[in-house]
Parts: sequence; structure tokens; C-alpha cells
Amino acid sequence: MGRYSNISENAEQAMSIKYNTIVYDLKRKGVKVLVMSLGEAFFDVPLYSFAELPISEIYHYSHSLGIPELRKKLADYFLKQYSIPLNSDKEILITSGSKIAIYMALMAILNPGDEVVVQEPCWVSYPEQIKLAYGIPVQIPYDRSIYDYEKYITPRTKAIIINNPHNPTGYVYTKEEITYLLELAAKHNIWLLSDEAYSDFVMDGKFISPGSIDKEKNHTIIFNSISKNFGISGWRLGYIISNEKMIHNVLKINQHLITCPATILEYYVLNYFEKILSYTVPMMKELHEKRKAVAAYMKDIGLECLPGSATFYFFVSIIPTKLTSEEFCTRLLTEEYISVVPGLGYGYSCDKFVRISIGTSKLDEIKCGLDKIKEFIIKTS
Amino acid sequence: MGRYSNISENAEQAMSIKYNTIVYDLKRKGVKVLVMSLGEAFFDVPLYSFAELPISEIYHYSHSLGIPELRKKLADYFLKQYSIPLNSDKEILITSGSKIAIYMALMAILNPGDEVVVQEPCWVSYPEQIKLAYGIPVQIPYDRSIYDYEKYITPRTKAIIINNPHNPTGYVYTKEEITYLLELAAKHNIWLLSDEAYSDFVMDGKFISPGSIDKEKNHTIIFNSISKNFGISGWRLGYIISNEKMIHNVLKINQHLITCPATILEYYVLNYFEKILSYTVPMMKELHEKRKAVAAYMKDIGLECLPGSATFYFFVSIIPTKLTSEEFCTRLLTEEYISVVPGLGYGYSCDKFVRISIGTSKLDEIKCGLDKIKEFIIKTS
Repeated sequence: MGRYSNISENAEQAMSIKYNTIVYDLKRKGVKVLVMSLGEAFFDVPLYSFAELPISEIYHYSHSLGIPELRKKLADYFLKQYSIPLNSDKEILITSGSKIAIYMALMAILNPGDEVVVQEPCWVSYPEQIKLAYGIPVQIPYDRSIYDYEKYITPRTKAIIINNPHNPTGYVYTKEEITYLLELAAKHNIWLLSDEAYSDFVMDGKFISPGSIDKEKNHTIIFNSISKNFGISGWRLGYIISNEKMIHNVLKINQHLITCPATILEYYVLNYFEKILSYTVPMMKELHEKRKAVAAYMKDIGLECLPGSATFYFFVSIIPTKLTSEEFCTRLLTEEYISVVPGLGYGYSCDKFVRISIGTSKLDEIKCGLDKIKEFIIKTS
Repeated sequence: MGRYSNISENAEQAMSIKYNTIVYDLKRKGVKVLVMSLGEAFFDVPLYSFAELPISEIYHYSHSLGIPELRKKLADYFLKQYSIPLNSDKEILITSGSKIAIYMALMAILNPGDEVVVQEPCWVSYPEQIKLAYGIPVQIPYDRSIYDYEKYITPRTKAIIINNPHNPTGYVYTKEEITYLLELAAKHNIWLLSDEAYSDFVMDGKFISPGSIDKEKNHTIIFNSISKNFGISGWRLGYIISNEKMIHNVLKINQHLITCPATILEYYVLNYFEKILSYTVPMMKELHEKRKAVAAYMKDIGLECLPGSATFYFFVSIIPTKLTSEEFCTRLLTEEYISVVPGLGYGYSCDKFVRISIGTSKLDEIKCGLDKIKEFIIKTS
């Protein structure tokens, strides 16, 4: 028999995918499940014509940085929307989703054994991607302040990752916090990786990217996702923004791993950019109102969560249950037919939390689900 | 400033991409270039309607193995076309192109410092991908026999990679050779990685995959590409076939790096599978006839190449030129406006070769180009 590597044997499956697989199986058996575990918001966007796209181009490879016109369009959007100036010929690379963009950036900065600082709760793929790039994730427990991060920086530290706005809490970083993290990065010659896949979910211009402060991008690497912000998560279009040298190094890796994202979908998004936004922007505003209603309801019934104000995620405390978060979620799913994701998937300090997503269900269903979660916490305490 | 990793600093750009970038620049200046450097065949396939596809599915993530119906369709095709039995629930994973599929398989088998044997000329991304997975490429010079491979196997060897049919020679492996390589893999407990991206370009049922001999896939990992075989290289749909455990380990990596390929394109290919084939199969036959005509013409004018009978590539000797293959190609491009790829990009033993692709130009243009290449060899000898 052929033999396997240690990193693949030790890699962990995403907890959210594990639970969603159980949901699919239950649904196939005809069981009605209240799904609050999906990492997607369902937007009702029409499908426009593909026949309008340039037929001589859409079947073939595109430039390994992504098609120039789409890079230009994104650069204009970033300047207008987030005050981030960028040269679309040299400082942006479009690839097959922001996941692989983050991984390639980690490969571009980590030597084996180098460390990356990330606070819990953190998206499950950050530690796994760091390990797959032969780095070491240094995970800060959820109850520490950003101003404590320096204690976790060592001579082996190469980067800090933040998710802004944050999955699973919905937290939006302040200008003061971003400025502090950039100062920390400058002091220690490290990178600040800012995963901004949900940036358009922040209302009232409150979203601050490090790219609007570190305009030279000497320490800043930004990841964003056309897929998430446009409600087309399955199209796998993400991009990375940084300085010219970083983008060049990622480009070399991209040429050997990906070549380019699906050319036809790049042209589609380029062609219908404003039209898609005209649908998604009002729906994001609606989602924001729904979030406020859910937050108010949770306060009413005494469910606590970590601070947050954007996206469709809440990270809810299940104290005083006696169950672990995995036991809690498995029983909630099989006894009450409600699917949420165990906090343990977001770090060892988070085993008394669950992630709730309000992206796909109706408000009254969500309220009903929250009531049952509250009851289940009491029942198992 | 943030700091970079050694692997990204040392990664090399693909030689073919480097030359094609010069071609794009020349074309933009209005220069007419005979392009024989592209890794694509241009098929004239119509674009079918996307409106027929299931709208509730196409925007969202799909199963991380790829959509079940497309896996089933590919499994049926493999059994019928290549006599490879496979369980579509467990032994195939569809992802964003065969490049990332190969890379993830290398991550699934290599510990740092493990070796992979590959013979030159070899596709430029194999050695680079092996290095990006912290392995060591052991490159066999082009003039050795397959039956010499065992000399290059050490206790650190984990795999042999072959490309069948072969880019850049067009060579098709015989059943005896595949059987021998599988025996070698079994003897040393290593994997045989078979990159079969051009399998449909082999006529008369002469294509033999190791999967048709090692039916348990204990040592076999197959990569193939819907993109290449269907003339839609820019759509990034590749897949990996192996035993259940290997696919499970690759699945875990895929979930953290890719999630799934573009869902909408999976549904498109599923929906129009037979229709697309009804266009591409006759065009592949035509290309095969064109290959025979080009081979005959090269023999006539005394241009020599390495043995091969399929695909749209020829690996042509430029002996007795005094130039290196890079000097030769740069001068051929800037003085004669013909673009071909330097052999050096396919290994150090190949510096007296160039890769010629006949996928995109007309036969009489190609003949004219070959005449000029022959003259240029004499002129520079």
C-alpha cells in the first residue's frame, strides 16, 4: 500500500461541514430540520444571460492575476467603498475563493515552524491552513483583549490573522484596534492578515480595513470574496490585496496551484457587477435589521452572546449546560431537530458556546429555535 | 516590513507563462505572432443555456467531493471508456482544476524531505508543486528508460509521477510499461501518480490507465481534467480518483483549501455532458490527423522530436544550435515572431529542445513555422 503524510492524517474536518452533513442525511429521510448552521446567507439574485459574455475568451485560461478589467473594477470599488488605494496591475490577485488565497499567503510568509497568532473563537480553517503550510497556530483564548496580543508574539511569529467582521461573533473592529494591530505588526516586522469576506455586511460606513491606514501595504494582506459579498458563495471567486512583492510571490504559487479562477465567472461578475449589487445591498440591509431583532429577542429571553453587530452569525453562550458543545449540538439536532455548530470547532476555549447562523431561516422560526435552545440549556444544566 | 518564506522566494514562474506573456505584449503592439506555445487546443464548442440549471443550487456551495450526479457520470464514463471501476461516493473528488488536485495528493503523501521521482521532460509544475509540499523532486534525465526508474528509488521515495499521454512529448505509455510501474510501486510501497489530463486525445482505445490494472487503487492516484478534455480549460474543473482512504485524506485538505469547485459549472457540465462530447470528440480526431500530418512534415524536413503519438504537443530537438533553449526561443520570438517554449522549462537535461504546440494554428501556418525553426537551427549552429 502507498503511505500517507502526517499532515493529512492529522488534518481535522471542519466542524460546520460535519454537522451540515448530518443535516443533509436527516433531510433526505424527510425530517424537517431548523437549519442555523450554514455559512451562507440566501440572497434572491436573478441569473443573467451568459450569451452576452465574450465567447472567444470565456472558455480559456485568463491572466494568472485575474482578468484586468475585473481587477480594475474591484480596485475602484475598494477606493470608493473602503478608502483603500490600490494599483490593479500589481496589488491584487483574483483566485478560486478566499480560502486558497489565505493559504497561498501563508505559504508566501511561513517557513516551517513559524508562528501565526489568531484569537479564538476563530474560523476553523485558519489553524488547519497554518498547519498545512507547516506553521504553528498560536491560539489566544476568547476572553483576552486585543491589547494583550503582544504577549503571544515571539521571534518565530510572522503574522496575526483577524476576521473583520468576525465569523462567528459578528464583531467589527474599531479604527483604534486596527491602528494598534498595525503598530504591533510594524514593531515586530510581521504581517496583519485581514480576512474581510463579510465586509459588505457592515452598515453605516463603520467598516475599517487596515488597507485604509497602511496604504503602502507594508504589513497588510487583505482577503475578500466576491462569492460571499455577492451571495454566490459556490462560485469560488476570492481575491488578495497587498503590496507588489507579496502579490508577485503569491502569483508564482498561484500559477502552480490554480492558474486562474473560472474565466467565464470572472466575465459574468465583471459584466453584471452593478446589477448584482443592486440586489444584494438591500438584502444585506434587511439582514442587518433581522440581526437587530434577533439580538433584542436573545436579550429578552436571557441568551448571552459575544459582542458583535454585523454578519448573520451569533456566538451564543450555553453556560450553565453540563454538556460539551459537541454533545449539546448533537442532542439538539437529534432530539429537537435544530442544527447549530459546536463552539469547540472555533477553539478549545469555546466549548461553552455554539454558533448560530440567521442567514437562511425566517425570523419567527429563528425565535422559536432560540426558545428551544434556551430550554435545552436549562434542561441539561 | 513583513517577511517572506523561502519556498515563495525560490518558486519559479512557469516558463510557458513567461513566454506567453511576451506574446500578449507583442500582440498588443500589433505584431503578428505565430503562436505555438499555448497549452490549449481551441475547440469550437457552443455555449448552452444556463437558465436550464437548478437555480436553487447553482449559487451555493456543493458537496466537498463535488456534486454526486457529476461524480456518478464521470464514474460511468471511466468504466465505459477506460475500464476503470470506481465507487462514485468514495473514490472520486472533483475540485478546482487538476493542478490543485495533484498538489493536494502530494500533501496527502509527503512528509518534509520525502522524494518523488519524475522523468524529464516533465511539466514544469510537478517539481514546483513537490517543492511547495516540502518534498524533493528526483528528476530523471530524458534519455533513460522507464525500466531504469528503480535506480532512483530510495527509502525516502513516496511516489512516481507520470503524465499519460505526455506533455510535452505526446507519448502514450504501453500496458507493459504501466504494469511494470505498478509492480515497482507495490514492491516499494509507493504511489503511482498518473496525470491523465489529455486522456481523450488518445485514439483507437490505446490509452491505458493504471486504474484499469490496479483496480483496488492501492497504489494508484489518477488525475484528470474536465477542463482539458472538454476544451474548457478556463473553467477549472479537475478531479482525483483513488482508494477511499486517499480520497478521504484529500477531502479534508480540500475542505480547508477549496471547499468545492464552481457549483454552477459542475451543473452545466452535468447537464450538457453528452452534447459537449459530441462536439469535442470529432475535433480531437481532426487534431489527431493534423498531428500525423505535422509529424510527417517534420520528418520530411529533418526536424527530430522525442517519441509521441497523441495530444497537440511535440518536443523538438534543436541540436545542432549553439544557443541555449531560452536564447533560441527569445530570438525566434523577437526575430521571426514565432513563439515556442524552451526545453529548459521541462528539466535541465532538455536544454536542446523546444516544445511546439499545434493546438491553435492552421496546418499551413505550422508548416511554415517549422521551416523557419529548421532554418533558425542551421543559422545558429
